[in-house]
Amino acid sequence: MATIVQKYGGTSVADAEKIKNVAGRIASACHGGDRVVAVVSAMGDTTDRLIELAGEVSSTPESRELDALLSTGEQMSCTLVAMALKSLGLDAVSLSGAQAGIRTDSRYGKARIAAVEAGRIQGELEGGRVVVVAGFQGITEDMDVTTLGRGASDLSAVAIAAAIGADRCEVYTDVEGIYTADPRHVPNARKLKEVGYEEMLEMASLGAKMQPRSIELAMQYHVPIMVASSFVDAPGTLIHKGADMEPRVGEIRNRARAVATDRNVAKITVTGMVDRPGISASLLEPLTDADISVDIVVQNASVRDTTDLAFTVSGDDADRAFEVVRTVAYLIGANDVIRTDNLAKVSVVGAAMQNTPGYASRMFRALADEGINIEMITTSEIRITCVVDADRVSQAARALHMTFGLEKPD
Amino acid sequence: MATIVQKYGGTSVADAEKIKNVAGRIASACHGGDRVVAVVSAMGDTTDRLIELAGEVSSTPESRELDALLSTGEQMSCTLVAMALKSLGLDAVSLSGAQAGIRTDSRYGKARIAAVEAGRIQGELEGGRVVVVAGFQGITEDMDVTTLGRGASDLSAVAIAAAIGADRCEVYTDVEGIYTADPRHVPNARKLKEVGYEEMLEMASLGAKMQPRSIELAMQYHVPIMVASSFVDAPGTLIHKGADMEPRVGEIRNRARAVATDRNVAKITVTGMVDRPGISASLLEPLTDADISVDIVVQNASVRDTTDLAFTVSGDDADRAFEVVRTVAYLIGANDVIRTDNLAKVSVVGAAMQNTPGYASRMFRALADEGINIEMITTSEIRITCVVDADRVSQAARALHMTFGLEKPD
Repeated sequence: MATIVQKYGGTSVADAEKIKNVAGRIASACHGGDRVVAVVSAMGDTTDRLIELAGEVSSTPESRELDALLSTGEQMSCTLVAMALKSLGLDAVSLSGAQAGIRTDSRYGKARIAAVEAGRIQGELEGGRVVVVAGFQGITEDMDVTTLGRGASDLSAVAIAAAIGADRCEVYTDVEGIYTADPRHVPNARKLKEVGYEEMLEMASLGAKMQPRSIELAMQYHVPIMVASSFVDAPGTLIHKGADMEPRVGEIRNRARAVATDRNVAKITVTGMVDRPGISASLLEPLTDADISVDIVVQNASVRDTTDLAFTVSGDDADRAFEVVRTVAYLIGANDVIRTDNLAKVSVVGAAMQNTPGYASRMFRALADEGINIEMITTSEIRITCVVDADRVSQAARALHMTFGLEKPD
Repeated sequence: MATIVQKYGGTSVADAEKIKNVAGRIASACHGGDRVVAVVSAMGDTTDRLIELAGEVSSTPESRELDALLSTGEQMSCTLVAMALKSLGLDAVSLSGAQAGIRTDSRYGKARIAAVEAGRIQGELEGGRVVVVAGFQGITEDMDVTTLGRGASDLSAVAIAAAIGADRCEVYTDVEGIYTADPRHVPNARKLKEVGYEEMLEMASLGAKMQPRSIELAMQYHVPIMVASSFVDAPGTLIHKGADMEPRVGEIRNRARAVATDRNVAKITVTGMVDRPGISASLLEPLTDADISVDIVVQNASVRDTTDLAFTVSGDDADRAFEVVRTVAYLIGANDVIRTDNLAKVSVVGAAMQNTPGYASRMFRALADEGINIEMITTSEIRITCVVDADRVSQAARALHMTFGLEKPD
C-alpha cells in the first residue's frame, strides 16, 4: 500500500464537472489500494477574480488581508473535492492550510514553509480517510493566514509528501508532462519519460510548468514527482534522482535533455565603473533590497581601471531595476546606464553537460547558422544559456532542438 | 469613548461600492471617537451560490464540508471591508471566526456558541485597530469550521458584544428598523423607536428581520441592539430592556406594539388517540429526534377516553413531519392523521398585554368582522396568535393594525 500525494491545479478543478472528474481519479487510486492526500488549487481563475475584487475595494490592498482573501479560493475547492469524494462513497475530509498544519513565516504573499505539523493528516489517513488539503496557504504562529506565492500549491504538495514520508507526489495539470521544448514553438518537441531534479529545476526556472521552490524541496527530501495531465490517461514525466545519474561506462548518451526559453528578459548595462573591490556588490545590493531578482550577471575585463557590468532581470522588473540602478550608478560615479528590452533566454539543459566537451560550441554554431546574435552567455553545471533577441527565440529553440536531436526517444 | 459592535448584512456588502460605503460608515463612528468591531455577512447571494455549487458536486453535501465551504463567504467579505478601511487611512484587521475566538460545538450547520475567547479582539482594539470579524461561523475544539445557522451573523455580533462588554450592538440591514407590521402588506405600518427584548423575540420568531437566538442572547447579557438601515441615514429601532418596563401608574399606554405574520405554516392533526399519560410526548419526541421544530400545540379535551392533538410546523418541514407522525400514530393506535397546508400565523405582540383584559377578544372580533376563520389560538405573556388561512393573512394583519391603532406614534 503506497501513500501518494496528488496535486490538482486550478484548470483541473475549474468547475463542478472537473471536480467530479478529479474525485474519480482519486477514487481510482484508492481502489487500487493507495492512501491518498490530494492538494488542490483554487478553481480556474478564482484567484485572479479575488485579486480583481480586492482592487475594486482598495488601490493598494494590504498583504495580510489579501492573503486571507486569496486563501478562500483553495478552501472552497478542497471542500468541494471532499464532497465529491463522499458522494462516490469514499470517506474524505477537507483541511485548510491551517488545519493541515502548514506552518509558515509571516512574509505575506510569499511565505516560506517553516514546518508541516502532519499529525492531523496522519490521523485522518490512519482513519481510512482521503485527505483533501487546500494548497498555496499556511498559517503563522499568530494564527494569521499566509499564501506561499503564485503556483505554490506544488510546494504545498511536496512539503506534505516530505512530511508524511509519501512514496511519491503526483502533480496533475493541463499538460501531459515535461517536454524537450515548448510544443507551441517547437512542433516536434517530445514528452520526457524522466528528468533529474536539477535538470527540472533549470527548466522550471525557465518556464516549464513546475514551481522551482517545489523542485528544490523535492530534491532535498528525495520526493519523486510525477507530472501528468488530469484530463488524459497517459504516462507523464517522472522527476527523480535516478535520472540525474551518470550513464554506464561505455554508454553513449545524449546529455542534452531539453531546450528551455524565457521570453521576458531585460538587460541593464552599467559602463565606466571604477574597478575596485566591492563595486559590483554596491551596485547589486540595492536591487536585492528592492526585492528584484537579478539573473545573469556579466562583468567585462577591466579596461583602463574602469569596468562594465551587465545583468538581466525579468521584463516585469525592468522599470524598477532601471530606476534603482540609475541612482546607484550616479552615486558610484559610473559613466552610463543602458537598458535593453525585448530580450529572451534560450537554454540547453542536461545533467553533467558541462563535463562533456562540445555542447557549448555546437550551441553557438547553431545560433550563428541561423543568423541569431548572442547578447550574453552564461553556463552552469547542467545548462548553457544565451540571451538573444526576443523575436528570434522560437527560431533559436527550433534550431537547438534539431541540433541536439531532442526529437529522438530517450 | 464607547465600544460598539456593528453588524452589516449581506445586502450591505453586496459589491465593492457597498463595501466602501460600509467602510465609510465605520470610519465615521471611529472619527466620532468610538472603538468599533464590525461583523459582516457574506456578500449578497454568495451563500446561495456556494450552496448551489455544492449541489452540483454532490446531491447530499456533507455538513462538515458544507460549513467549511460556506464560511469562505464571510471570510471574503471581512477581508475586503478591512482593505477598504485601510484605504481610508484607518488601521484595520480582519478575523475569521476561528481567529476571533468564536468557539462552538460541532453541530454543523447550526452550531451553538460555547464561548467567545475575545483576547485577540481585545488586543487588536487596544492596538487602535478596527476589527472586522467574519460572521456566521466559529470553530470547534478540533479546529473544524462550523456555521451557526442562517442569519446567524446577528448572533456572532451579539455574542462578541457580550464578550467584550460593548456599549451596544448596531445591526445594519436593508430595512430602516422594526415596524409595527410588515410594510409590504400593511401600508400604514410605522417604524418603532424602541421595542423590548421579549417583544422583539416574539416578532423575530414571526418573521421580523432579526435572528431570534441573537435576541435571546442580547436579553441574557443586557446588550442593547440598534437596528437600522445601512443605506439611509435615519434613526433605527432600539431593542433594549427599558422598553419592556411598565408604564407609570395612571399612564394609559397601548400595550399592543406590533402585528407579526408568518406565512409558511402547516398543521398536523392526530385524531382518536387513547388518552393516557405520556401520549403527547411519545408523539412529539420523534419529531424532536428528526430535528423538526413544533410550534403551536393544542390538545382537545378527552372524549370517550380518546383525544385529538394538533400542532403546527414550518411549511418546509411539513412533508417530513407528516411522515414521522404517520408512523408513530400507527404504532400508538391513533385513528387518523390529517394534514392542512397553506396556513399562516398572525400575532399581536406587546409586553404585558395578557395582564390587560380585552386584547384577545378585540383581536377575535376584528378577525370575525373580516369573515376570517380562526384555525388555532395560542397566547403567551406578550403575544396572542391566531392560525388562519394563508390567503387571508394580509387582510388579517391590516385589520388588526387598525383595530389596535398601531399607526399612531409611540
